[in-house]
Amino acid sequence: MATLSDIGLAAAINILSAIAFLIAFAVLRLQPVNDRVYFPKWYLNGVRSSPTRSGAFVYKFVNLDWRSYLRFLAWMPAALKMPEPELIDHAGLDSAVYLRIYLIGLKIFVPMAILAFAILVPVNWTNSTLEDSKVEFSDIDKLSISYIPLGSQRFWTHLVMAYAFTFWTCYVLHKEYAIVASMRLHFLATEKRRPDQFTVLVRNVPPDPDESVSELVEHFFLVNHRDHYLTHQVVYNANKLAKLVKKKKQMQNWLDYYQLKYDRDPSKKPTRKTGTLGLCGKEVDAIEFYTSKVDEISKQEAIERELIKKDPKSIMPAAFVSFRTRWGAAVCAQTQQTRNPTLWLTEWAPEPRDVYWKNLAIPFVYLSIRRLIVAVAFFFLTFFFMIPIAFVQSLANIEGIEKVVPFLKSLIEVKTIKSFIQGFLPGIALKIFLIFLPTILMLMSKFEGLTSLSALERRSASKYYIFLLVNVFLGSIITGTAFEQLNTFLHQSATEIPKTIGVSIPQKATFFITYVMVDGWAGIAGEILRLKPLIVYHLKNLFLVKTEKDREEAMDPGSIDFASSEPKIQLYFLLGLVYAVVTPFLLPFIIVFFVLAYVVFRHQIINVYNQKYESGAAFWPDVHRRIITALIISQLLLLGLLSTKHAANSTPLLIVLPVLTIWFDRFCKGRYESAFVKYPLQEAMMKDTLEHAREPNLDLRAYLRRAYDHPLFKDNEENDDNISDGGESEFENKLVPTKRQSRMNTPVPSKYNGSSSPLLPE
Amino acid sequence: MATLSDIGLAAAINILSAIAFLIAFAVLRLQPVNDRVYFPKWYLNGVRSSPTRSGAFVYKFVNLDWRSYLRFLAWMPAALKMPEPELIDHAGLDSAVYLRIYLIGLKIFVPMAILAFAILVPVNWTNSTLEDSKVEFSDIDKLSISYIPLGSQRFWTHLVMAYAFTFWTCYVLHKEYAIVASMRLHFLATEKRRPDQFTVLVRNVPPDPDESVSELVEHFFLVNHRDHYLTHQVVYNANKLAKLVKKKKQMQNWLDYYQLKYDRDPSKKPTRKTGTLGLCGKEVDAIEFYTSKVDEISKQEAIERELIKKDPKSIMPAAFVSFRTRWGAAVCAQTQQTRNPTLWLTEWAPEPRDVYWKNLAIPFVYLSIRRLIVAVAFFFLTFFFMIPIAFVQSLANIEGIEKVVPFLKSLIEVKTIKSFIQGFLPGIALKIFLIFLPTILMLMSKFEGLTSLSALERRSASKYYIFLLVNVFLGSIITGTAFEQLNTFLHQSATEIPKTIGVSIPQKATFFITYVMVDGWAGIAGEILRLKPLIVYHLKNLFLVKTEKDREEAMDPGSIDFASSEPKIQLYFLLGLVYAVVTPFLLPFIIVFFVLAYVVFRHQIINVYNQKYESGAAFWPDVHRRIITALIISQLLLLGLLSTKHAANSTPLLIVLPVLTIWFDRFCKGRYESAFVKYPLQEAMMKDTLEHAREPNLDLRAYLRRAYDHPLFKDNEENDDNISDGGESEFENKLVPTKRQSRMNTPVPSKYNGSSSPLLPE
Repeated sequence: MATLSDIGLAAAINILSAIAFLIAFAVLRLQPVNDRVYFPKWYLNGVRSSPTRSGAFVYKFVNLDWRSYLRFLAWMPAALKMPEPELIDHAGLDSAVYLRIYLIGLKIFVPMAILAFAILVPVNWTNSTLEDSKVEFSDIDKLSISYIPLGSQRFWTHLVMAYAFTFWTCYVLHKEYAIVASMRLHFLATEKRRPDQFTVLVRNVPPDPDESVSELVEHFFLVNHRDHYLTHQVVYNANKLAKLVKKKKQMQNWLDYYQLKYDRDPSKKPTRKTGTLGLCGKEVDAIEFYTSKVDEISKQEAIERELIKKDPKSIMPAAFVSFRTRWGAAVCAQTQQTRNPTLWLTEWAPEPRDVYWKNLAIPFVYLSIRRLIVAVAFFFLTFFFMIPIAFVQSLANIEGIEKVVPFLKSLIEVKTIKSFIQGFLPGIALKIFLIFLPTILMLMSKFEGLTSLSALERRSASKYYIFLLVNVFLGSIITGTAFEQLNTFLHQSATEIPKTIGVSIPQKATFFITYVMVDGWAGIAGEILRLKPLIVYHLKNLFLVKTEKDREEAMDPGSIDFASSEPKIQLYFLLGLVYAVVTPFLLPFIIVFFVLAYVVFRHQIINVYNQKYESGAAFWPDVHRRIITALIISQLLLLGLLSTKHAANSTPLLIVLPVLTIWFDRFCKGRYESAFVKYPLQEAMMKDTLEHAREPNLDLRAYLRRAYDHPLFKDNEENDDNISDGGESEFENKLVPTKRQSRMNTPVPSKYNGSSSPLLPE
Repeated sequence: MATLSDIGLAAAINILSAIAFLIAFAVLRLQPVNDRVYFPKWYLNGVRSSPTRSGAFVYKFVNLDWRSYLRFLAWMPAALKMPEPELIDHAGLDSAVYLRIYLIGLKIFVPMAILAFAILVPVNWTNSTLEDSKVEFSDIDKLSISYIPLGSQRFWTHLVMAYAFTFWTCYVLHKEYAIVASMRLHFLATEKRRPDQFTVLVRNVPPDPDESVSELVEHFFLVNHRDHYLTHQVVYNANKLAKLVKKKKQMQNWLDYYQLKYDRDPSKKPTRKTGTLGLCGKEVDAIEFYTSKVDEISKQEAIERELIKKDPKSIMPAAFVSFRTRWGAAVCAQTQQTRNPTLWLTEWAPEPRDVYWKNLAIPFVYLSIRRLIVAVAFFFLTFFFMIPIAFVQSLANIEGIEKVVPFLKSLIEVKTIKSFIQGFLPGIALKIFLIFLPTILMLMSKFEGLTSLSALERRSASKYYIFLLVNVFLGSIITGTAFEQLNTFLHQSATEIPKTIGVSIPQKATFFITYVMVDGWAGIAGEILRLKPLIVYHLKNLFLVKTEKDREEAMDPGSIDFASSEPKIQLYFLLGLVYAVVTPFLLPFIIVFFVLAYVVFRHQIINVYNQKYESGAAFWPDVHRRIITALIISQLLLLGLLSTKHAANSTPLLIVLPVLTIWFDRFCKGRYESAFVKYPLQEAMMKDTLEHAREPNLDLRAYLRRAYDHPLFKDNEENDDNISDGGESEFENKLVPTKRQSRMNTPVPSKYNGSSSPLLPE
């Protein structure tokens, strides 16, 4: 067991390395040549167009003003200065609320730490009954619950503290939920007119033998939402086209690269071979080769575009339906349209940028099968991921490598290299897996068929959280793989499980303190350095960039990776809540993490990140639920721990806590969750009315007509009207001649095709 | 262990007693004097007004036509003859679908029984390996899984059968869900115009300092549903009035009783004492006494009525809001109205008869606290109900009685009486508790704050099902009270629990066979006799009935008691599914139960019951879910049983079953449940359009104006218009002058009170 001085040393090392990162950042960010890496947000906002400093040529690349280096922490107050409303304006609500997760960590843990150090630490420390016993105690243990003898009356303190911490956490959570919900509603109420306010995504339009999807959609909504329907856009299956566009882009990049090479050294024509990867085959002029490739793909692309427009099979049974008013859209999104709840599924349309186009055409039956498959796959991934990795590890030994690549044998046999490989290899498979894990989880979520990027990120985050909970938290406390744990738990009684885990909790405090420092502190400090984007930007700048526009594309500001960073924060919440009563000594480390992360991410959000979409903080219910989960886990583990400490009479009192917490969660859900799921009609009506008063002559149809074009069609064909045929019919003529011949599936009573006008009110 | 002949004997006894019941019924139902007990439905429908047979005086009471007695089972085919659509017309969809629960039992278990007897019984029976072993086997055991030796390959048959039974059950369930859902939608689509189609129940109207609830509701809906809002009715707190009316009714009954007594024997004026229960105090003329009582209460009632109408405090913050179209109501019921999801809560209004008026005013915060309280109370009721009963039992012994009522001592000491009391007493407390259990559960559900009788019955049924599952099913398999079981389970591992229960399953087969016969067969046969209503009717007829109307009131047809009878059926589903693979010999007994129950209840529904409300089969999702639960329980228990049989390699294959079943349940939920929760807009629009075409001049406002009056106001004050002030404003004048002075909580932008008309479309 580590002593206090051990931990102090580890802390010092980690603090030093964090400071080294920060200094490196302070130096690099001041170089004008890196300006686009560390301040891309301002370029995207149009505030900056070139590095701030001007003057001699060298100043364009290196900052020689020594005074600016003295203020190497100046970015910190600057990052904190921007007030929240301005931040929302600048970076969107998602980012602003994401920062509140760190703030909520501080709000929960700072008072907890103060209380714990004022009460729990003295109670643990002054406990002299075991001073002379033979059990060895480290310094940290003296601060923790382990130091208290079995059956002591002092456990009542811990019990009371558990109550206090639970109520405090719930109080903060409740307050925060209320604030975020009102922020979201305020954001939705004050934001500018956006297409998604008027638009509903309709999926599973049933097939009809007589009418096209577009006609069917128009008829259906003209009949069933006759006073509100405005226009619609069908969805094209452009996945093949997207592939072509991607390939063309690649070829164009190579062309640019060789062109640039040729421009810099016109004496030598660049060449490449025609075979696989340019390694074999005939040698040709590279520029000509890629020019012809680009031309060829452009032709294919044009053909594909025509095909998509003409072939009815490329129209998916889904559409974006827009309404005259927000009220109409709110009504349509919240109601069921037909008898069969799996047809004409309506939901709020995501922002146009937020749409995940590929998944729009999956029918309902497949959706539920896909969900089953992903659930089973995720279960196996979580509990059995060690099996393939162990298999790879068993292959990847020195002998294996020598067999596959015999010519490296002499090199490998060098002693230092050999030992390096032997130490390095077993870990590498696991490391690679963990790096790719968020991507794997994202692929799983995509397979599930969610239709917006924000929902995909939220789903991946849930999966990642469960993975971390099982494999990092439980995996560190109990030895053995996740599957072995699962097996143990299945063979243990419901009362034994919390005991098994609870008993090991105090012993693992030092491990988790180190974990917080290495993964948390150093990770955050590394985040601000942005090493990967820095390198990629400079490489691109060297080889690909020709114009200012290219440079802008090379910038890659990135965005908050909600799917992987939020679950990691949740791990710290879990650690903090679990150890708050058991080993309060861990809390300051968590607090330092939250402070550091808050400042760093605030800086990044202001200066770097460019969100891909704006979901209006739709992720908050997930954040809330996970903190509640952590709270319940901490209560159960404390229950297990105390029951092994012969403090049995406290058990009934502790069981009350999870019950109350679950009830609190349900209460919050009923009170606030709907703000994140539904759009109240009153709000919609208010906004509609205001808008109608301010701009009575607004041509909403023109505004909405092309809003939900597939991004691939948007770029090239601003003037091509064939794509959005839903918007073509004239404004007043709401009766569309039907091509229907059979009466199958007729969604409207026939008289509507005759004399009576559907515009008449009832 | 019982042998086959033991069970045969028990079966014979039960069959004989059931036949005795049926014969008694056959005789009693033919007596004209009992006509109103056994055929009240026809009187209520207006088809009959007096017993069918007429003639001599004696024929009015006794049926002397001996031929009719020969056809003593004639009611059975008659009960089966009525086709389902006519049944729905005659008794409502609730009753028709309730019968389908028995049908689904037959559909599931008949093919299962055939398959099991064709395959499983031979496999078990022909198993000769243990013929000569020393273990004793009864005949039933030879038919069951217990007869197969450990680790035998024959368990594969049981595994395959478990798969077959699961798929068959799911197939039947799926088909039935589809049928019931379409029956419900068809019912809703074809039923006559009903007020609840146009009406939404609004709860938690926020308090407003300037406006009354009625004005507030009107303003809110005029603004936020301006094209659709028609009228509304506020809800009065008439609980005190209801008490007075009930008391008056009681007094009136006594008055009638004495009046009748006096009429029959005018020589003797009936008297009663004024004190408690008429036992002590001054002796007065009973008729005069009760007349004055009735007058007094009538006065109080009138005052209370005035008070309710005038006092704004008696108006609850809830209202029934009616719309011009079904579409408008469907929209309002399915959407969220304001930012705060706990205010202006909208839901479909129940039928007027179905409303549970008392609960309409409970605020949201109390609702969630009440739910917590009930959940905790129900937990204790289920697991600890034996504690108070054991306490009562310990008091209620011979000595205790002798102490309390010493003058009975000599009587009690008589030997036969003593032994009777000793055998009888311990059971009586439990028996009384079990009789009152459904009432207790209903009180709990009422406390939870549900607003319709149908929802209350569904909630009580859920509770009762859990109680039966824990205390009857598990309680019979594992000895000990529910709390002891709970304690055992908490100290057992997740894999041990199914084993513990699974192992005992085959041994309890004979017990459950007897249970099915005694509780099921005899219970159903007793149901058709209607002993209690028969006695009560004749007593009332003797003492209270003066006019034909009184006689009609004395009839008491009763209704299906969904809250207690459905969970009992579910118990048979559970037994059938659990024993289908283990001891298929139990299946025929279950089938007999379902056949008998189906015929008896069909008869009762056609001839007797008068449903209090019509919920449109809203209970089906519950029925479906409980059968799924039973299926999963049966799979887990089989898993436990087989793993003790050393058939371990079948475990992974069996785990697949519950996973698939849970997935199937989620699939069904997504596909069909919404038919029972939401009202699709297309259906609403179609019905609106048809109605508009058929009756263009319908005065819907007049139709709806008094629909949701409190039943107490409905009877007396058909012409009193003050009660429903929501409907008073004129049809065209939709602008209500506001009394608002402050701008707090203003739900509408102010310009609407000014010049622009809210009728203008956007």
